[in-house]
Amino acid sequence: MARENNITISDVAAMSGVSIATISRILNNKGNVKEETRKKVMAVIQSVDTNGTLLSKFKKQNGNLIIAVVTNDANPLISPFINGVNTCANSKGFHVLQYNCFNNAYDRIEFEYMIKELPVAGFIFQQIVGGSELTDFIAARFPTVVSFEQYQTENISSVGIDDYAAVKSAVEYLITLGRKKIALLNGDLSMPFTVRREQGFLDALKQAGIPVCPEYITHISVSDFNYNLARNAARQILSMPDPPDAFFAITDTFAAAVLKEAKHLGISVPQDLAIIGFDNTDVSTMTDPAITTVNQPCYEIGYQSCNILIDKINDPSLASRQVWVNSEFIVRDSTQ
Amino acid sequence: MARENNITISDVAAMSGVSIATISRILNNKGNVKEETRKKVMAVIQSVDTNGTLLSKFKKQNGNLIIAVVTNDANPLISPFINGVNTCANSKGFHVLQYNCFNNAYDRIEFEYMIKELPVAGFIFQQIVGGSELTDFIAARFPTVVSFEQYQTENISSVGIDDYAAVKSAVEYLITLGRKKIALLNGDLSMPFTVRREQGFLDALKQAGIPVCPEYITHISVSDFNYNLARNAARQILSMPDPPDAFFAITDTFAAAVLKEAKHLGISVPQDLAIIGFDNTDVSTMTDPAITTVNQPCYEIGYQSCNILIDKINDPSLASRQVWVNSEFIVRDSTQ
Repeated sequence: MARENNITISDVAAMSGVSIATISRILNNKGNVKEETRKKVMAVIQSVDTNGTLLSKFKKQNGNLIIAVVTNDANPLISPFINGVNTCANSKGFHVLQYNCFNNAYDRIEFEYMIKELPVAGFIFQQIVGGSELTDFIAARFPTVVSFEQYQTENISSVGIDDYAAVKSAVEYLITLGRKKIALLNGDLSMPFTVRREQGFLDALKQAGIPVCPEYITHISVSDFNYNLARNAARQILSMPDPPDAFFAITDTFAAAVLKEAKHLGISVPQDLAIIGFDNTDVSTMTDPAITTVNQPCYEIGYQSCNILIDKINDPSLASRQVWVNSEFIVRDSTQ
Repeated sequence: MARENNITISDVAAMSGVSIATISRILNNKGNVKEETRKKVMAVIQSVDTNGTLLSKFKKQNGNLIIAVVTNDANPLISPFINGVNTCANSKGFHVLQYNCFNNAYDRIEFEYMIKELPVAGFIFQQIVGGSELTDFIAARFPTVVSFEQYQTENISSVGIDDYAAVKSAVEYLITLGRKKIALLNGDLSMPFTVRREQGFLDALKQAGIPVCPEYITHISVSDFNYNLARNAARQILSMPDPPDAFFAITDTFAAAVLKEAKHLGISVPQDLAIIGFDNTDVSTMTDPAITTVNQPCYEIGYQSCNILIDKINDPSLASRQVWVNSEFIVRDSTQ
């Protein structure tokens, strides 16, 4: 009977045959529910929620004003993103606190503490940091949004760019420049966005009739997403007997690593090697040449993520949503 | 009588003539206090703490396990720093949550909410983000550490490098290379660390008998600490009829901005212009040439900040401390 401690509104819906929206109205005392339905639902809850966990969660809900943002702080997009979340949250009377999943690993004790002791109303995840097991666990209990992703389930909304199309367009641009030996420096495929970006890369090549060279594709563990690993990976690929003439890198930092290694090896950029990064961080304009990249509207992603989260907090009956925002391709000297 | 709501242990100490350490022992029921003293202190508290604010704060203290870290997320040192804080906190049963002061401005409502509603045991500030008014306000109520600073008051401990000596040594190194026209790109002087770094700069010149050229010194508002502003500032100085032959920049990002503008103006680095940055972030190795810089041990600063904070939480009678950690000067190609 361990399940009793983790009873959710979805369980009650399944057992009573009453919709989640109606159960929410009952627990929030919002009226518009037949007395017969109310009695049926409360009977189910009393039979399974013996610890009162579900009820106390709902009783506390009106006072739950914290939006917990789960991030991997190593990501330079976080600052404008959190600023967007804050702006939206504060305008609606919510408060934002940030929890860092270092190396994308989460500490279960931390989350149990947060859920039990703090008046958290909802969660925003930067991508699925901590892994899908964590986001699913949280989403079964709290309104949840995943940002910088298109990751939708029954319980999870998301806000992000079209990663597939953004990468496909960027690679098509390289092809129009006459490049045919195109390498990819990607994160590992444990994250939905890395999978979609890789698919965009592969489809661009396929549609142009360019065979994929598996040796040109490298995956760096997302738990170890750093500049030095990217330099090692770039050095290996650029040192091949038949090196690529273009590189698509999953972040500007990785693109800077490719550029650095190309210079060390005497490879001219962009003449012998075109390089495209991702994110339009300051790094992409600091290097010489500056790096062609894809801009994500981080502030807007943060603002919209918070906005749909608060809608869901205020009305748990709302279905999950998938919000797409526009990315922008920025051509600089690394691909001329 | 508005003051009654903000009564602090310091007020009780002043009014009762009993030390803060003793009052802490009384409120924490730690014994070793004469009954006569205890009665005197409790009488003072009962007369001034009519709302019970002080008492309820102390009663809750054993359950207060959150360490709130107040940061300005735009700073690239934050990730390893928070990692250090987390590691120490988790090993001692505390939980870390982060609050962002964007543009170094804080929202009073946010802090009032945090203090009132969350079981916060202590605060760590990244420098004095939010301003000294905020740190002083918090430090009067909670154990408080300021990190990346030497900022000590009766209530505030700090953990940081010796900013003065680090900058003085770096500028002395430029002088040994034969540079005499040395520019400074600093933050504004609202922060203790920018003041100390500027003093190190000025003293290095003074001791070498090099006159200070005020036109070579620029201050960028710390509320607007960004790459593009630094580029504008660097462009102005490098376009002077008699430009500098060396630049000390307060961050690697600013040093990268100086390098970028030098290249645009056809100034060779390091031949015509030597450049030194600060922080040893990835940026300092991404540029070409790589930038000479000063490393701060961010993880260690985070770990030690949390460690002395928890000591103080566990024993409020401890005096504030000033912990110095070692910086490291790293010579790269921008100053050969």
